[in-house]
Amino acid sequence: MVRQLRAEATRAAALRAAADLFLDVGHANATLSQVSAQSGVTKGALYFHFASKEELARAIVDEGHERVSTACAGLVDSRSPALESVIGISYSVLELAASDPLVRVMYRLQMEIDGSETARGSVFCTWGNIFEHLFDRAIEHGDVADHLDSGNASLLVCEMLAGVLMVSEAQSALESAPSRMEKVWNTVLPSLVPPNKLGYFREFAARSLSSFVPSEEFTNA
Amino acid sequence: MVRQLRAEATRAAALRAAADLFLDVGHANATLSQVSAQSGVTKGALYFHFASKEELARAIVDEGHERVSTACAGLVDSRSPALESVIGISYSVLELAASDPLVRVMYRLQMEIDGSETARGSVFCTWGNIFEHLFDRAIEHGDVADHLDSGNASLLVCEMLAGVLMVSEAQSALESAPSRMEKVWNTVLPSLVPPNKLGYFREFAARSLSSFVPSEEFTNA
Repeated sequence: MVRQLRAEATRAAALRAAADLFLDVGHANATLSQVSAQSGVTKGALYFHFASKEELARAIVDEGHERVSTACAGLVDSRSPALESVIGISYSVLELAASDPLVRVMYRLQMEIDGSETARGSVFCTWGNIFEHLFDRAIEHGDVADHLDSGNASLLVCEMLAGVLMVSEAQSALESAPSRMEKVWNTVLPSLVPPNKLGYFREFAARSLSSFVPSEEFTNA
Repeated sequence: MVRQLRAEATRAAALRAAADLFLDVGHANATLSQVSAQSGVTKGALYFHFASKEELARAIVDEGHERVSTACAGLVDSRSPALESVIGISYSVLELAASDPLVRVMYRLQMEIDGSETARGSVFCTWGNIFEHLFDRAIEHGDVADHLDSGNASLLVCEMLAGVLMVSEAQSALESAPSRMEKVWNTVLPSLVPPNKLGYFREFAARSLSSFVPSEEFTNA
């Protein structure tokens, strides 16, 4: 039991060091020797957990998926209104990318990993499944404009969220990604919700942003 | 002169083969030996042009930037209306990603390259500069809603375009990316243009899509 806990701690230390290193020098330039040096995990222990740099990258992607799913799961509560959950998840996903290096590097790595043979579903598809389920409920609540179906609405939100993430990352401005997302909500809500609910959802998107941005930054925005 | 032309042809063959290979097995898994075998370029000639796999990747990113800029340049004509140019560029960028393997792999690689020391501006920033210039003119024409400035409008279009590109790529559905973009225009135009111009721009976005999608696919859509 103690040995298992120690192995888990070693694995976690290696993943964390590798994420920092990949962000710093890029996955292509990093070596397992550097991961060993930065994590304090011996090369022998490192190879016990990960046969190659590729396998280490895949473990980061899997762990990142897991963390995003966990963060979203807390917001998908069948008792809370569905479109409110979609908005909350969008902020949560962006805040997690800004605050957790492993999640941030996962987004960079997944395109590389998906290009290889052992591809698994992209994180964008994971979001899509969650959003589609929520939009089905939002339609039942009358919170979605008549001309939209849940497939198209969820695809649209995935595209917006992926776009804000990628452009913020390219500009090294991930910390302001939730605020950017609020502007995007402001822009797309008129086409997404029935006219009589626009006021409410714009207000909700603006107010709920404050839960995801440090209060100081929010009041200065 | 002949020698120079031959060197350029060799370089182009290596870039093309590398792009195909990176798409196929992923940049991390590819080797310069495989590029040599697939391109018919000897390893000696390959190393003459590119000192490392990293340098080859960087050359693909630079060449991809160049192709995107060239494709956009033809659409940024000071005589044509600016917001129409923004819409045309959005389709053109997506069509190019779908049809040109080098451009497609550029989008995957640039995140990896940007993480390294010799980072250059992201292609998203290149789009941003072009769009901001065009939105300045569109505002003069009265084609942009009062509350928007060119910085926010261009950032929004960058985010939407990046999002459609990334989600289509993740779903292996790049060929339908221009059609997806038309749906996104339909959604955001109500917040982007003055109410009296909405009808015209929705019609323009729908009709100009046909220039970027093979006619058969368009009529079946």
